[in-house]
Amino acid sequence: MTDKLNIDDLPIRDELKGKSPYGAPQLHVPVLLNTNENPYSLPEDLVARIAERVAAAARDLNRYPDRDAVELRTQLAAYLTTSTGHAVVKEQVWAANGSNEIIQQLMQTFGGSGRTALGFSPTYQMHDLISRGTGTRWIEGPRRPDFTVDVEAAETALQAERPDVLFLCSPNNPTGTAMERETVVRLYDAAQAVKPTLVIVDEAYVEFSHRPSLLELLDGRPLMVVTRTMSKAFGAAGLRLGYFAAASAVVDAVQLVRLPYHLSAVTQATALAALEFTDVLLGYVDKLKAERDRIVTELRALGLDVTDSDANFVQFGRFEDTHAIWQAILARGVLVRDNGVPGRLRVTAGTPAENDAFLDAVRTVLKENR
Amino acid sequence: MTDKLNIDDLPIRDELKGKSPYGAPQLHVPVLLNTNENPYSLPEDLVARIAERVAAAARDLNRYPDRDAVELRTQLAAYLTTSTGHAVVKEQVWAANGSNEIIQQLMQTFGGSGRTALGFSPTYQMHDLISRGTGTRWIEGPRRPDFTVDVEAAETALQAERPDVLFLCSPNNPTGTAMERETVVRLYDAAQAVKPTLVIVDEAYVEFSHRPSLLELLDGRPLMVVTRTMSKAFGAAGLRLGYFAAASAVVDAVQLVRLPYHLSAVTQATALAALEFTDVLLGYVDKLKAERDRIVTELRALGLDVTDSDANFVQFGRFEDTHAIWQAILARGVLVRDNGVPGRLRVTAGTPAENDAFLDAVRTVLKENR
Repeated sequence: MTDKLNIDDLPIRDELKGKSPYGAPQLHVPVLLNTNENPYSLPEDLVARIAERVAAAARDLNRYPDRDAVELRTQLAAYLTTSTGHAVVKEQVWAANGSNEIIQQLMQTFGGSGRTALGFSPTYQMHDLISRGTGTRWIEGPRRPDFTVDVEAAETALQAERPDVLFLCSPNNPTGTAMERETVVRLYDAAQAVKPTLVIVDEAYVEFSHRPSLLELLDGRPLMVVTRTMSKAFGAAGLRLGYFAAASAVVDAVQLVRLPYHLSAVTQATALAALEFTDVLLGYVDKLKAERDRIVTELRALGLDVTDSDANFVQFGRFEDTHAIWQAILARGVLVRDNGVPGRLRVTAGTPAENDAFLDAVRTVLKENR
Repeated sequence: MTDKLNIDDLPIRDELKGKSPYGAPQLHVPVLLNTNENPYSLPEDLVARIAERVAAAARDLNRYPDRDAVELRTQLAAYLTTSTGHAVVKEQVWAANGSNEIIQQLMQTFGGSGRTALGFSPTYQMHDLISRGTGTRWIEGPRRPDFTVDVEAAETALQAERPDVLFLCSPNNPTGTAMERETVVRLYDAAQAVKPTLVIVDEAYVEFSHRPSLLELLDGRPLMVVTRTMSKAFGAAGLRLGYFAAASAVVDAVQLVRLPYHLSAVTQATALAALEFTDVLLGYVDKLKAERDRIVTELRALGLDVTDSDANFVQFGRFEDTHAIWQAILARGVLVRDNGVPGRLRVTAGTPAENDAFLDAVRTVLKENR
């Protein structure tokens, strides 16, 4: 063999052959509205606090970090309790390097080879990819044309497919669609009626929602898990801090698969600093919700088909040649996302100026394509 | 179901039932010599540099980190090139949250359900646990009574078991045993003669070895991977930074399973700061090697059976009641590790004062048990 090997020359798993890595193109353009990042940089006093807490942690960096991240989980539990009004304790909370690692740990525990997971497409692609990555068979459940979940159709799918894990994403990425509380209750019950099923409610974008969190549903539902992230509402995508709340037994269970000391001392220190600034950071969320609503209104005024959004992004269409529209918007310096939903694109709510640039680009492109 | 659920009431995977999480007891005693940590805190100028680089990264924390960690991989490649004299480029290097995540990514790509991995026991327990955690069947290969690997016995095991992945750990944890270069060459060839096999050479402790790194063996061996960590020689266990070097196609292959943006901006910034201080940090390694050699000599002078060590720890015995000896040493304020190797314990080389405390404790315990 020579040095110029290709991936497929290697004895990788058959199901990986010919696949591409997940990830949006990382292009350098003036306006980046493609990965649902928060456009607001951290305030300088928070940056200083992070430096201070990380320096303190760095003095003991020769030692392994707190394997159980007790202080961080305590503060995350306090945030959940305060922000939702539903009491959660640290024993019910677990944290990892991004909600992707959270989901991976859950799938290693409750999914895996010989097991199945069901989600309602289109939805967050990593649910599918992490399921497959852990050997779990992925099943696509249906959505209505307006991207809401049809409870009767979902119940039929649950009975037919008997999944071990059910993914509910609310607000849903990439459509922005929130689920009704009653829908979640019915689907949890329908799943358990078939067999014991872990129900993962992905609330990565819930702080941007018009509706309250589904966290209160944890009471009396021992197989429900609510996943969260600091990437969006806390403006900390670079931190990679995801977490979940559930019955404490679920937290105990993922200890069997989590890599020991998975969460570095610098990550724990940075997350704790950001949590001290919760009120400041959530102030940006209100601005972004208003901007999100403005984008919906203005795109609809242009005659576009816009999906109702409870997130910090908006799905819009419909286009005959989606890729051409994506490219034309990009040519005007604005990067949006083509998630593969036929006829639709997704734009992240940025700063008012960024959103203006996006809306101007769309107006121009629509005129040129008329 | 009530809130007082146990793990085994949950629909977790059958193979996880009744298992315990991996990890040494985290006890608070004066002298901690149980997890092979580097006893030297980071110097204050490095702490300041970490705070500076993390603050810079924190200003853009609302953005996702560099998904490909290009600057970090470039600096890790430079470190490998300089320290081993064998040229490695960034395209051959990949980094993750600890060498555990490195190994997990490799097993997700080259192991998994229906595949097998072989290692020579006793060895680093996470090789076994991560294999199982990814659905890979784990096979224990043999070692000689002195804990070296017997090439003929190993070749027989390779032919009989036909593993997809072969783990070689040098220096080996928990025994401290290094492998001869020629042994590694023969085992690589023997494995490939049976079937294409990924050969993972775990060099977590190589900076403490009497022998050079096996990195140069990568040339012409496209299925060899050398894994490393910043936890030990760089005194940064709290950072969780593991990496590997291999043919660039292997780096490409793990992109198919790595979680996107797995490595946070603060982790990348901290690791880059530490790499700026390579010379200072490796200065501690020389002290630790001398202390390791002193521990070996003094334990042998006490009449104990001590395994030759190329790492920053020493395996010693033999004891009839290993747990009682572990407990008696602990009662004198020194925490060592019982890795489950019959009749043996493992002690990490600490500061001279810590090692003195350990040696005093052993002397007392031996006297009392005579």
